[in-house]
Amino acid sequence: MAQFNAGILGATGAVGQKFIRLLQNHPWFEIKALGASGRSAGKPYSEAANWIESTPMPDSVKDLEVRNCISSEFKDIDFVFSGLDSSVATEIEADFAKAGIPVISNAKNYRTDPTVPLLIPEVNPDHIEMINKQRFTADGSGWIVTNPNCVAIPLTMSLKPLYDAFGIHSVVVTSLQAISGAGYPGVPSLDILGNVIPFIGGEESKIREEPLKLLGKLENGAVVHASFPVQATATRVPVINGHLLTVNVKLEKTPADISEISKAMKSWTSPISELGLPSAPKFPLHIFEDERYPQPRLHADSEEGMQTAIGRVRSGDVMDVSYIAMAHNTIRGAAGGAILNAELLAEKGFLR
Amino acid sequence: MAQFNAGILGATGAVGQKFIRLLQNHPWFEIKALGASGRSAGKPYSEAANWIESTPMPDSVKDLEVRNCISSEFKDIDFVFSGLDSSVATEIEADFAKAGIPVISNAKNYRTDPTVPLLIPEVNPDHIEMINKQRFTADGSGWIVTNPNCVAIPLTMSLKPLYDAFGIHSVVVTSLQAISGAGYPGVPSLDILGNVIPFIGGEESKIREEPLKLLGKLENGAVVHASFPVQATATRVPVINGHLLTVNVKLEKTPADISEISKAMKSWTSPISELGLPSAPKFPLHIFEDERYPQPRLHADSEEGMQTAIGRVRSGDVMDVSYIAMAHNTIRGAAGGAILNAELLAEKGFLR
Amino acid sequence: MAQFNAGILGATGAVGQKFIRLLQNHPWFEIKALGASGRSAGKPYSEAANWIESTPMPDSVKDLEVRNCISSEFKDIDFVFSGLDSSVATEIEADFAKAGIPVISNAKNYRTDPTVPLLIPEVNPDHIEMINKQRFTADGSGWIVTNPNCVAIPLTMSLKPLYDAFGIHSVVVTSLQAISGAGYPGVPSLDILGNVIPFIGGEESKIREEPLKLLGKLENGAVVHASFPVQATATRVPVINGHLLTVNVKLEKTPADISEISKAMKSWTSPISELGLPSAPKFPLHIFEDERYPQPRLHADSEEGMQTAIGRVRSGDVMDVSYIAMAHNTIRGAAGGAILNAELLAEKGFLR
Amino acid sequence: MAQFNAGILGATGAVGQKFIRLLQNHPWFEIKALGASGRSAGKPYSEAANWIESTPMPDSVKDLEVRNCISSEFKDIDFVFSGLDSSVATEIEADFAKAGIPVISNAKNYRTDPTVPLLIPEVNPDHIEMINKQRFTADGSGWIVTNPNCVAIPLTMSLKPLYDAFGIHSVVVTSLQAISGAGYPGVPSLDILGNVIPFIGGEESKIREEPLKLLGKLENGAVVHASFPVQATATRVPVINGHLLTVNVKLEKTPADISEISKAMKSWTSPISELGLPSAPKFPLHIFEDERYPQPRLHADSEEGMQTAIGRVRSGDVMDVSYIAMAHNTIRGAAGGAILNAELLAEKGFLR
Repeated sequence: MAQFNAGILGATGAVGQKFIRLLQNHPWFEIKALGASGRSAGKPYSEAANWIESTPMPDSVKDLEVRNCISSEFKDIDFVFSGLDSSVATEIEADFAKAGIPVISNAKNYRTDPTVPLLIPEVNPDHIEMINKQRFTADGSGWIVTNPNCVAIPLTMSLKPLYDAFGIHSVVVTSLQAISGAGYPGVPSLDILGNVIPFIGGEESKIREEPLKLLGKLENGAVVHASFPVQATATRVPVINGHLLTVNVKLEKTPADISEISKAMKSWTSPISELGLPSAPKFPLHIFEDERYPQPRLHADSEEGMQTAIGRVRSGDVMDVSYIAMAHNTIRGAAGGAILNAELLAEKGFLR
Repeated sequence: MAQFNAGILGATGAVGQKFIRLLQNHPWFEIKALGASGRSAGKPYSEAANWIESTPMPDSVKDLEVRNCISSEFKDIDFVFSGLDSSVATEIEADFAKAGIPVISNAKNYRTDPTVPLLIPEVNPDHIEMINKQRFTADGSGWIVTNPNCVAIPLTMSLKPLYDAFGIHSVVVTSLQAISGAGYPGVPSLDILGNVIPFIGGEESKIREEPLKLLGKLENGAVVHASFPVQATATRVPVINGHLLTVNVKLEKTPADISEISKAMKSWTSPISELGLPSAPKFPLHIFEDERYPQPRLHADSEEGMQTAIGRVRSGDVMDVSYIAMAHNTIRGAAGGAILNAELLAEKGFLR
Repeated sequence: MAQFNAGILGATGAVGQKFIRLLQNHPWFEIKALGASGRSAGKPYSEAANWIESTPMPDSVKDLEVRNCISSEFKDIDFVFSGLDSSVATEIEADFAKAGIPVISNAKNYRTDPTVPLLIPEVNPDHIEMINKQRFTADGSGWIVTNPNCVAIPLTMSLKPLYDAFGIHSVVVTSLQAISGAGYPGVPSLDILGNVIPFIGGEESKIREEPLKLLGKLENGAVVHASFPVQATATRVPVINGHLLTVNVKLEKTPADISEISKAMKSWTSPISELGLPSAPKFPLHIFEDERYPQPRLHADSEEGMQTAIGRVRSGDVMDVSYIAMAHNTIRGAAGGAILNAELLAEKGFLR
Repeated sequence: MAQFNAGILGATGAVGQKFIRLLQNHPWFEIKALGASGRSAGKPYSEAANWIESTPMPDSVKDLEVRNCISSEFKDIDFVFSGLDSSVATEIEADFAKAGIPVISNAKNYRTDPTVPLLIPEVNPDHIEMINKQRFTADGSGWIVTNPNCVAIPLTMSLKPLYDAFGIHSVVVTSLQAISGAGYPGVPSLDILGNVIPFIGGEESKIREEPLKLLGKLENGAVVHASFPVQATATRVPVINGHLLTVNVKLEKTPADISEISKAMKSWTSPISELGLPSAPKFPLHIFEDERYPQPRLHADSEEGMQTAIGRVRSGDVMDVSYIAMAHNTIRGAAGGAILNAELLAEKGFLR
């Protein structure tokens, strides 16, 4: 696989820093450019960023001069990862796409755009064909691909085997979300220490809507969304990393026995498992038998933070099945997911 | 109201200590006897107990000599509160009832007994008539009354107005439970600090079953249970006090507008509000409008820990309504609930 | 005692809110005016403030229109409490003093001013005479009194009996400080959850210097500072309320036996104990015998948060004595301390 | 380097589990035998142990049958690591040594024995010669080596450069210790969540004494202890891993400038740096310039948990220098330290 020169937009923020940490020593992608706000532009990255990752800032980025997030300053770059804040992502990402620089974005802005893939490689890799409908450039060289919300990812990963095997009638879900999901400085400690906050602004609509696009069928290059209602409650808990979900699902076809549901989850195989993508977890889904698991502090880092862990699969009296799902919200649920998206796109020849 | 001499069984445990703290300065009940295991019996309470409450041990109990939990040692006592462990409560509580000493119990052992009231004074005060069917003594002087599980209490408190106004078809609930619910030493800090444990042994069956008895109708002195399925997931979170529930309810009769549901909750009035029971909260239910509330650390102590707080009442696509419910698990959900039960029974003449 | 009309400067901040909560139902002082920045001025307080106290906002302040922090808008007020940020306190507090409106301040700005009392009523009540040297107004009607830093208070409270009995040669202290000391939003949860931050900007110099002024002797209306070195390390820990200090003291006169040190602490009596000040704790110092105590979560609220708790008094090989000191940092260490200062000043006739 | 067959005593406990995790894939040592109490003996390890490490139990130990901790059952083993509880370590470790099986122990029992090395390879590697004075066996084939207390290790690591360069007059230290130091189940969550416990039983005497043996001089095969007083206060804080110390040191020879102290720490080099021991950190001491560091949650895992981090080196008015020291308490401070000890002993030919 050829080497690509990658840029990072929003490089000084929490997501940007996670991109930098995860791309350290990446076999395909090399960070060549870092973009941030005008306040940081012109400074060496080591000076512009308030580094919050626990591992040290990689030497390879310390001296990179931070650029403005303008496409004309990134002409030497093959594609960019975007960790931009949603308040600025709409315009900046379009600017890059129009300039022929592909954007692999973690921002929410284009997730609902009918020509933009909302992508989890293990769930809907075929959706990347939507790119061909994008019209940012005449020759198709500039485009945008997005990854889902950090709760939508483990939710959809866990629903996928059930959707394929039984169909889904409806979902009731509660999320217990880690503080890292709010970025930095994010949640004030006085709000969350020894406490639960039963509300996260804007989160529940994403949990309701994104799984439907992700599980949708591609027809003539466009996605026909799946159609089932999701009722969601999003809460914040004093956990560093790892969003945990309690999920209840009513299926279209109720299996005779709950064990068939576990079996469907365990026997599910990722459609990209043969591609050898560097960041793809060996086991994208892990089903725990121990009813105490998964737990965010113990299991969020499994498979380099790219695994979705499932536990407590059991039948219910209201809906067919209840279970726990959990994944690392800033790796699988954000920067790591975007990197895996880029790897799939590179492998499929969309990055050139 | 006359003064009653009260005893406490399991007085050295976490629930027993909470009884002692809450009964300090109680206008009707005076602690005259403390019972614990043989290991503690004979010692002054100040020596037998590893006091874990944050307020100091009341002087009034320091020098009480701990007794064995045998009815013959409690002949000077009008009634007992039981904070006994379930491993011993079945026999000891029966021993006291047979000796004509009423037992107001927080233990789970007799909750499902068809002649034993499972009591929340604001929900089913009429159930106390079940006592008349108990046959521990020929003259009815000895009996047992229980209070529900610490999740079942706020769940049922919040369901009651909906049950009365609309009927309940089904419930899907997730609990985020405080560590104090596991007693002392209880949850190891290495398990819960910065973590969530998605399983609490034995909890979910109580959440499914107890609301049905509590909302049941008394017919000929026996309870005909309510009949609707409850699907429950119980989790532990790093919070000191206050169990928070995310509740989703499908109603029998869907109201035209979600505001009717809020209205039903807000206009609901407690059937015991006129009785002047010392521990009865002025507002047993409080409905927050601020979507960030209730939060356990901020609101568990409201109305001396006896209030159930509701928030985020909103409609859903799968079930009619979603909301948050929260109450102090060791006060409203345990010792405080039992004391309110005793007050109702005293007021109704069952304590003599 | 006559009733005084009090104002609060910085009323929307964390300290200002604490003033409001603590003054609710105060027998002497009534809140009549609330001052905040121009952004809040003109709005009703209920709208201007993001209320973070756990008890509800008192009805008495909800409709007060927030004023600008300008003395001309406070002419109807007898005196003001200042919870102003240090970035603006110097000018605003002087403005009020010059206008003849006494300022009881929690800000640090005037603490080191040689004419301004740095006051702990139980330690140096005589220092209030320094007010007579202030020249904000010709007739002495306007003046400033300050209370110490939240670590300096429990440190000095604990040193006072030792200073009086043995003299102090030197002090080595480490503070473990609660997050509420940083205000709101204050410490990001990502920084402190499951962590310790071994640095608090600007804190250690206050810990070194303020005890020397507090323990100083008044001579001709001016304070001759005590003279001993203090070596301090300030750390932040994930605790809500209550700064805990590990203190090591070398005395001028080493007592023959460590028990004399405990005795000096226990037999110490507050010089203001007979005055009946409403916020004065009955026991300003409490000495625990149980070596596990004091603990911030259990004991910060003792005596309405106004007590300093001491524990583990024991001899050492390097310095004569080591012990633990702990007090509620936002009550005793901030707003509550300022209110006690105002009570002493009212009692002594300085408020008119 | 030859391969050695290693056993682990106390293999089901928290320290034993850490040994197993750290020895996974060790280039020199292979775990061939696991010893635990009679309750576990005879069971496969996967069944006997309640695995609490966050990474999965290595397959290589799952099927090992747990043995009794009796030397006759370990005849196939070259040496053992001991994670035994101190209540049983005295007899069991002696039994193994007498049987000619070397014991590398983390237990405290033999730390003060004048013939047993208390060893930190970077501090006192020459002390291993003390082994020759041990008389467990006639031929010297059986012996015991211990590693220090988890606070004594970072304290002594940080004192070593100062001791060598300036001499040490006295030390005043406060430790903020992680909950993992208390083992499992260890500290109840109700005691430590949002709290500080200012006492850890038995800890302070180890902090006072062990550095003196570690910094002692070997004369005629015996250690002449260093001689300076240490005044210690040990506290527990809600941190998972990483003991943080605030250290104040008075030196024998005060340098002209504080920068000489930093320089002494930075220029210090480990005497074993050339040996290529697999678990030896590349930089045993790391000196942070950023005054916010080190922090346990960010830096305890540095260099696989084997580094001691120093920060905030600054001069003081009472003692010459204050600084922060921090190290991972269950790796550097326990199992990892013992493994490094074994590596040094293997390299020096004591394991055969």
